[in-house]
Amino acid sequence: MPETDLDPFREALGHGGVLSEAGETEPYVLDHRGLMRGETPAVLRPRSVAEVQEVVRLAGRLGFGIVPQGGNTGYVGGATPEPGRRQLVVSLERLASLRSIDPLNFTMECDAGMILAQAQAAAAEHGLLLPLSLGSEGSCRLGGNLGTNAGGLQVLRYGMARDLVLGIEAVLADGSLFGDMRSLRKNNVGTDVKQLFVGSEGTLGIVTGVVLKLWPSQDYRATAWVSLAEGAPLPEIAARLRRETADLVSTFELISGNSLALVERMRGGALGVAAGSGGALLIELSASIERIPLEELLLACLEGLMEAGYVEDAVLAQSESQRRAFWAIRETIPEGEKAAGGSVKLDIALPVSALATFLERAGAELARKMPEVRLSFYGHVGDGNLHYNLLVPEGRERVAFTHEVNEGVAHTVYEIARDLGGSYSAEYGIGRFKRDLLERYADPTRLTLVGAIKRALDPEGRLNAGAML
Amino acid sequence: MPETDLDPFREALGHGGVLSEAGETEPYVLDHRGLMRGETPAVLRPRSVAEVQEVVRLAGRLGFGIVPQGGNTGYVGGATPEPGRRQLVVSLERLASLRSIDPLNFTMECDAGMILAQAQAAAAEHGLLLPLSLGSEGSCRLGGNLGTNAGGLQVLRYGMARDLVLGIEAVLADGSLFGDMRSLRKNNVGTDVKQLFVGSEGTLGIVTGVVLKLWPSQDYRATAWVSLAEGAPLPEIAARLRRETADLVSTFELISGNSLALVERMRGGALGVAAGSGGALLIELSASIERIPLEELLLACLEGLMEAGYVEDAVLAQSESQRRAFWAIRETIPEGEKAAGGSVKLDIALPVSALATFLERAGAELARKMPEVRLSFYGHVGDGNLHYNLLVPEGRERVAFTHEVNEGVAHTVYEIARDLGGSYSAEYGIGRFKRDLLERYADPTRLTLVGAIKRALDPEGRLNAGAML
Repeated sequence: MPETDLDPFREALGHGGVLSEAGETEPYVLDHRGLMRGETPAVLRPRSVAEVQEVVRLAGRLGFGIVPQGGNTGYVGGATPEPGRRQLVVSLERLASLRSIDPLNFTMECDAGMILAQAQAAAAEHGLLLPLSLGSEGSCRLGGNLGTNAGGLQVLRYGMARDLVLGIEAVLADGSLFGDMRSLRKNNVGTDVKQLFVGSEGTLGIVTGVVLKLWPSQDYRATAWVSLAEGAPLPEIAARLRRETADLVSTFELISGNSLALVERMRGGALGVAAGSGGALLIELSASIERIPLEELLLACLEGLMEAGYVEDAVLAQSESQRRAFWAIRETIPEGEKAAGGSVKLDIALPVSALATFLERAGAELARKMPEVRLSFYGHVGDGNLHYNLLVPEGRERVAFTHEVNEGVAHTVYEIARDLGGSYSAEYGIGRFKRDLLERYADPTRLTLVGAIKRALDPEGRLNAGAML
Repeated sequence: MPETDLDPFREALGHGGVLSEAGETEPYVLDHRGLMRGETPAVLRPRSVAEVQEVVRLAGRLGFGIVPQGGNTGYVGGATPEPGRRQLVVSLERLASLRSIDPLNFTMECDAGMILAQAQAAAAEHGLLLPLSLGSEGSCRLGGNLGTNAGGLQVLRYGMARDLVLGIEAVLADGSLFGDMRSLRKNNVGTDVKQLFVGSEGTLGIVTGVVLKLWPSQDYRATAWVSLAEGAPLPEIAARLRRETADLVSTFELISGNSLALVERMRGGALGVAAGSGGALLIELSASIERIPLEELLLACLEGLMEAGYVEDAVLAQSESQRRAFWAIRETIPEGEKAAGGSVKLDIALPVSALATFLERAGAELARKMPEVRLSFYGHVGDGNLHYNLLVPEGRERVAFTHEVNEGVAHTVYEIARDLGGSYSAEYGIGRFKRDLLERYADPTRLTLVGAIKRALDPEGRLNAGAML
């Protein structure tokens, strides 16, 4: 490709707006998990919505495709330009400001390139909570969170990214601007087009702005590390916890014994907490005021669970630093897996009531078909999301093993989940790594509609071709 | 039209499945507010999803259009077949069963024709709450609630109908079945097509089934009737209430002095509660357990508001019967308006922070342009939804006055709302009565997309033609 093709973009975006040297583009073309090295003629970095429109129009005129990119922290290659497709990366990283915040309306309006943690901090300055919270919050960006309908640690209480969105602004495939940025909790004015941009992975438009719901800051917390007895019934425990604590549970995370052991090994010693033979739970209640007796509520519930024989031991965090220590364990599991040679991550969703059956069936099948594999599973089981990870066996190469699992035993696991009413993608999405799964497991009528909507909004297939479909 | 045209439907649906006598079809062709008398060759009443598919296919073959109908309780004529269009009404009233309930997963699966109150009751039997709650809950049906993205009395805490939906099943324009009925809180598998069926008023498919989220029953409540001082700042009051009660506010309803007076007049005497010069509030907190000190929290907050001079007086319900009496006042306002000669209902949405400015500006403009009109406004102001109603002046005919307002001063009100970031339709929708408003106020890019989606899903325009577009 002649380098001059990029000149119109340089004119439009100015100095620093176009990256085309291999060294410069590297961080944008390598996916977060290092499973795919993409290829792009250039990374475009618009600083305004008008500049996004301009580069989309130019790309169309010059025959380039576009891959929208936020923080490039996705797990399924949804933001990675594909070799051979001549796709420009449009990075939103310079369209990253807070537009406004309305504390009395409990809403904030942000550029889509804003880093999630910065949006959380901007809300916190006003005593408000933006409850979307995930491992990559320090580098992921709101547009990506919306495009992938991000989940994370507090879905049980606050819902997915979709549930937090009131308004969306997006640049369409032809460069026109869709704007539906009202800060309204109710606005029934016909087909709600903006919903399409949530979870469609940048295939229908480039999200440039977003209005988010906020909540009062939850400054008071009670946090427990719980060791579970053999066969402890997770669904019943989760349901009792919700009922008996006035639904103030914001986190209910399962940590398997194996996952805890990985963190112990990486840290080189005991962590002061233990997993029972049923694993461990990290439970957190939160409230905006001190008068809610969170610790009492949590203790009373845990005592009941101990009496029922479900809980072996429970430790309440006695200080913010102990609380942080509990959380650090949960958050270090992915690193622990990495240190142990890596893992293949299966992102399972299940009706909460089917968790135990799933663990039993999937565990038995894996032991039969791949006896050399150890599991590390953990996750947001309060909302039915299990990160069910297969550790790379010693001596095996990670990428090759990943492909082997994905083409083989992963389907055994996915089919068990499907038969229980579950899904092969709780929060990661489809991207480029799970396209075949979508084709294999999706209802054909739904797929037909996904295609029809894509053709209606992006008839020439300019936006993120190769992702999802 | 030759009567024989209906024979294939009679064959498909059997005895009682097809109503075509004028006396039989009357309840289905007259809209809920008596503003429009529609016309239909027949009302079809399928008893199964397969029968819905069958009648959609037959209607296509025989050149009929279709208007899906639930409880026919809408306010904007969205379920009324239009004269001259040859539209069959497909009523879901015989596809109205609970399919299943999963208490450990906090979900229920229902036929779309199920009456909302029956779904609430089915959940309550398991100690669970279906929080969707509105005036017509005794006769409206879930499919209609979804098709219109119903709001109601608890949106502040639980969101709109969309926020309660996990799964949807719908019969498409060609009779094929779209099924996405997983009971999963997380399921990111590409463009979320099912979102399109929420709020699109039956123009994209006939919803036949739904999976809904449930919560623990909220059996403990604290309810207050609050008289507001002149100029009491509603947004600040709502925000303080949310913050100071750990966000356990499930209802925050404004009742204007005029609205209360209408109820008093209808009941023929004082009601034991009063509105201050700033109107009155009905506030309710709720929780699933007794240990949350709801009354204390509410009292403490109200004391602060009295000290600030915002609240003149507040009465806490001392018994369930007193609580019901407070609620009955709020729920009787529409009847009170009817008894006083009727009203033109403007369904305004605003950022909560803009409420006071709106009331001031709209009140002043109305006093100037239509000095003979008295207002009755009330509504779910905790989420920015104001039912801003103009009472029919004595001696005027209701329907004629309605048209006069809708073609004249209503726009003044809508424009004030729009300029403040608000909307002319918070929860009623567009239907057949607000089509011109959609054209007038909608962003043209959004309208283009609404049209493109309609053509993609219903290229021949069979479903609810005339509604919305």
